[in-house]
Amino acid sequence: MKVITVLGLTGSGKTTVIEGIISELKKRGYTVGSIKQIHNENFKMDTEGKNTWRHRQAGADTVTARSHQETDILYPGELPIYEVLSHYSEDFVIMEGVRDAVVPEIITCKEEELPVISPLTIAISGRYANNKDKEYKGLPVINGTLENKHLVDLIISKTPVLMPDIDPKCCSKCGYDCRTFLSKLLKEEVKQDDCVLRKGGISLRINGDEIPMVPFVENILKNEILGVVKELKGYKNNSNIEIKFLSD
Amino acid sequence: MKVITVLGLTGSGKTTVIEGIISELKKRGYTVGSIKQIHNENFKMDTEGKNTWRHRQAGADTVTARSHQETDILYPGELPIYEVLSHYSEDFVIMEGVRDAVVPEIITCKEEELPVISPLTIAISGRYANNKDKEYKGLPVINGTLENKHLVDLIISKTPVLMPDIDPKCCSKCGYDCRTFLSKLLKEEVKQDDCVLRKGGISLRINGDEIPMVPFVENILKNEILGVVKELKGYKNNSNIEIKFLSD
Repeated sequence: MKVITVLGLTGSGKTTVIEGIISELKKRGYTVGSIKQIHNENFKMDTEGKNTWRHRQAGADTVTARSHQETDILYPGELPIYEVLSHYSEDFVIMEGVRDAVVPEIITCKEEELPVISPLTIAISGRYANNKDKEYKGLPVINGTLENKHLVDLIISKTPVLMPDIDPKCCSKCGYDCRTFLSKLLKEEVKQDDCVLRKGGISLRINGDEIPMVPFVENILKNEILGVVKELKGYKNNSNIEIKFLSD
Repeated sequence: MKVITVLGLTGSGKTTVIEGIISELKKRGYTVGSIKQIHNENFKMDTEGKNTWRHRQAGADTVTARSHQETDILYPGELPIYEVLSHYSEDFVIMEGVRDAVVPEIITCKEEELPVISPLTIAISGRYANNKDKEYKGLPVINGTLENKHLVDLIISKTPVLMPDIDPKCCSKCGYDCRTFLSKLLKEEVKQDDCVLRKGGISLRINGDEIPMVPFVENILKNEILGVVKELKGYKNNSNIEIKFLSD
């Protein structure tokens, strides 16, 4: 699964850019999900008086509305972004205004403003692309509607499979924190396989003790397990697999 | 997690009963989720013109609205009920109008109607409870608002931990299909541990969600893993095996 985020202030053209990206990805046959970060403090998806609304008022935490057309699961509070993403199995997820994930960024701003770029920025778009310049500080400036094919080509070529965002105290085996690693990956200074977690490190504990395995044995064990698990309902790519049992 | 469903026609008092159950469970300190089955063919949770609505119109499949107050994940189509339930971690889930799960049922109907009970029915409620009779065909008739404490006592004592609903072709080790097993459990003719799937064995989690397996598949997975693990230093019989990894 590949994930990007589009960042910019209100009125800078984020949603329009995202519409262009989603419709072009869909045209090319990809499955696409989206996530919108909402800053309105009074935001409520549900409608006052509906049965689901009455459930929540009575005290229900998670509430679902399930119909033939759609299934809507309403969680209380703000779920961590990687938890939200774990519910997706689409080829691409396009996020709007989400800042707490380590993913490539497309920056939007108004014509007269200066784009606020970061080491994770791969392009500038939104209303700024109405200007004549086709480049800003070495980054391409792309019109999200008229040039959405070009923008999608760039997204497909630049975006790596979703990477973890691990506390550097727990893992910096590649030599960097995850954000720095992604910025280096975008500059092609490292390869995605240099991330040990992406490599598919498998952890095996016997009675609580970590058992080291050479990559050859790791791969055998992983492939054996995936051979079975992939056939089960609930499995999707990029899943965290956890198995526990007591041996005879 | 314990799950029940409240069934009855429109206007029979389902939502009022559920409000009584949820608020009483919350008073007692439980976490509670709810699921509402919606039959309206034009149902849409989102509002025309909103950014999330524009994402969906552009072709997005799963769409999330994420704010400080709530995180709403909108899936296209009707998710299987056990998939919906796998997203819950509450102590209790109260379902309204959901008929495709093997769980105890509370039946509601109007005063002048006859309750349509099944072997999974544990109580009659809704407007029917305005009648004088406190029993119908051996089942308690309970007012969901005035007597919600009594109704919740009954739910807590009767409802088993959520059971699977497996095709009897794949598993009928207890001698029954899952629906018959639950009806016998409600009559105390069997125990929950008579269900081989409940007994435990191997636990498989994908992205944190427990994946139920029939014994046949459990054994394949366990034997595949042991085939490799038994060859490693550190293995002995009766060991706790724990494996974690991220799939590609």
